[in-house]
Amino acid sequence: MSERVIQLGHGGGGLLSRALIAQEISSRFGDGPLKGLPDGALLPDPSGRLVFTTDSFVVRPVVFPGGNIGDLAVHGTVNDLAVCGAVPKWISLALILEEGLSFAVLRTVLDSVRRAADACGVQVVTGDTKVVEKGRGDGIYVNTAGIGLAMDGFLLSPDAAVPGDAVLVSGPLGDHGMAVMAVREGIRVSGDLTSDSAPVHRLVQALLPWAAHVRFMRDPTRGGAAATLNEITGGRSIGIALREADIPFSRGARGLAEMLGFDLLHVASEGRLICICAETVADDILSAWRALPEGRGAARTGTVNREAGRVTLETVTGGRRIVDVPQGELLPRIC
Amino acid sequence: MSERVIQLGHGGGGLLSRALIAQEISSRFGDGPLKGLPDGALLPDPSGRLVFTTDSFVVRPVVFPGGNIGDLAVHGTVNDLAVCGAVPKWISLALILEEGLSFAVLRTVLDSVRRAADACGVQVVTGDTKVVEKGRGDGIYVNTAGIGLAMDGFLLSPDAAVPGDAVLVSGPLGDHGMAVMAVREGIRVSGDLTSDSAPVHRLVQALLPWAAHVRFMRDPTRGGAAATLNEITGGRSIGIALREADIPFSRGARGLAEMLGFDLLHVASEGRLICICAETVADDILSAWRALPEGRGAARTGTVNREAGRVTLETVTGGRRIVDVPQGELLPRIC
Repeated sequence: MSERVIQLGHGGGGLLSRALIAQEISSRFGDGPLKGLPDGALLPDPSGRLVFTTDSFVVRPVVFPGGNIGDLAVHGTVNDLAVCGAVPKWISLALILEEGLSFAVLRTVLDSVRRAADACGVQVVTGDTKVVEKGRGDGIYVNTAGIGLAMDGFLLSPDAAVPGDAVLVSGPLGDHGMAVMAVREGIRVSGDLTSDSAPVHRLVQALLPWAAHVRFMRDPTRGGAAATLNEITGGRSIGIALREADIPFSRGARGLAEMLGFDLLHVASEGRLICICAETVADDILSAWRALPEGRGAARTGTVNREAGRVTLETVTGGRRIVDVPQGELLPRIC
Repeated sequence: MSERVIQLGHGGGGLLSRALIAQEISSRFGDGPLKGLPDGALLPDPSGRLVFTTDSFVVRPVVFPGGNIGDLAVHGTVNDLAVCGAVPKWISLALILEEGLSFAVLRTVLDSVRRAADACGVQVVTGDTKVVEKGRGDGIYVNTAGIGLAMDGFLLSPDAAVPGDAVLVSGPLGDHGMAVMAVREGIRVSGDLTSDSAPVHRLVQALLPWAAHVRFMRDPTRGGAAATLNEITGGRSIGIALREADIPFSRGARGLAEMLGFDLLHVASEGRLICICAETVADDILSAWRALPEGRGAARTGTVNREAGRVTLETVTGGRRIVDVPQGELLPRIC
């Protein structure tokens, strides 16, 4: 039997990723806060309010339409804190630089980190820099860890979702993955296609008036909305029914996805929010989101139902299909 | 003029590293807590007690005599918190895996993370896993960020050191760097030579009875004791005089350093503590340290003097020389 080794698919956010996390990470560290909120940990500190998260970024190329690894690294960690119901406050910045990286690129990335941090109201408070030999990295990898303060009012858990709840998204899905793909492969896209990389913390704060009716939030990154929604339904007595006609997609992402045969529900966004909330507050939340620039494209896309563990899509042609989780890696190094 | 690019030396902990941090990092982020404690940030949170730090680890090889990248990553972050006078509490664990990494190595590393975390009393509370293509990494890179709670009593600053203060070290210097070097280069060393990778938080806690008389602590990692001591004296009105005969070195490290022409004061330790304290408490601290297994080799190695900005060494032959900071990279990827 050949030795088992890591494959690219282990980083893709699909089934292989999940198996790796379950078998190698959760089995060793899942007895503490790591078993709790998926995107961050609520720490058992005296205040009961600290949320802690970490994310490494290895996106290729480093600079892409709509952003670069620097602002992406800030947004990613800000968003992980935000979807845990926390106000992002402080982030760390750890760089792994490859020998030969140009200072011009480094400066572009660091300037973006600063600008994004300022725009998100977070401070870069501690850092680290390592250098590896040429051929042992890829220009620049960035890790940001973050600390936020949990807001009062949210009681977030996928277990809180009940049949009849609404499934909202804050804007078009999959733009980040498709924009990175297009530039990486040198494909010219008709119509605009830029990454949606952006902070979602203002979208989260806009939910506060209805916090008691918000069940769960996530930002659909690796594995796309399909992975996020399947994580919510997985092993639970609820399902989710999406209506394809109601899901917002940009023209550029849709065109490229059709050309390349991608399902945009599998493609990462880096500035969108998915929210499960009580049906009664769905319209109010959509109005509040649409009043923000980053929520202009918000839509109600589906409903929680009783089809245990299943995410389904009612297609525009009236058919119905299962929305599954990608097995391995569709888009390596998308974030 | 050719484009300026990152060199290996920018990661070495010497003058090039310092210039990179000063010109590219501090210039952008130095207006917040980042300008404060060098190894971690005291956060301006309501409790006034949170210390936050981050470190990436790229050591080559991943497994070395006395440890591996997993326990090293725990010790590194635990130590950064400890030298800021904090009790280490929670850490994050972010992995960048290279395609083709064997699960056996991954498991060795993760088991070590868990064991080291348990031994240090810290919890791994949040994590992230990315995978890069073969040839874009080197097996496994690890980032750990950490949160600690500042202990009462310490008022640590290099500005607090005054002429007459004692310079203590908790054990032999340079074993980590020499042990990694030996295995990397396939050199057989006469006598034991293993990494000193270990937590220093108990050594820090042992200082508490004399906390008001402790001026400053650091763990001498990249750049070795020379870099640490020069950072303390740099730009200040104090100097430090070391006595070579009083500096503890292991037989194995000394032998290899002589063979390869290394100055052990430039070589990284990963489990040693340097402490500047009032002369009056030096003996008490040495006794307290020597009562701990990790402080058995503690020694008083020098004295703070008035030679502004200068670190000097009285050699065993009675000479006197400047202890400078390495320019670039002596030992790439030592941590």
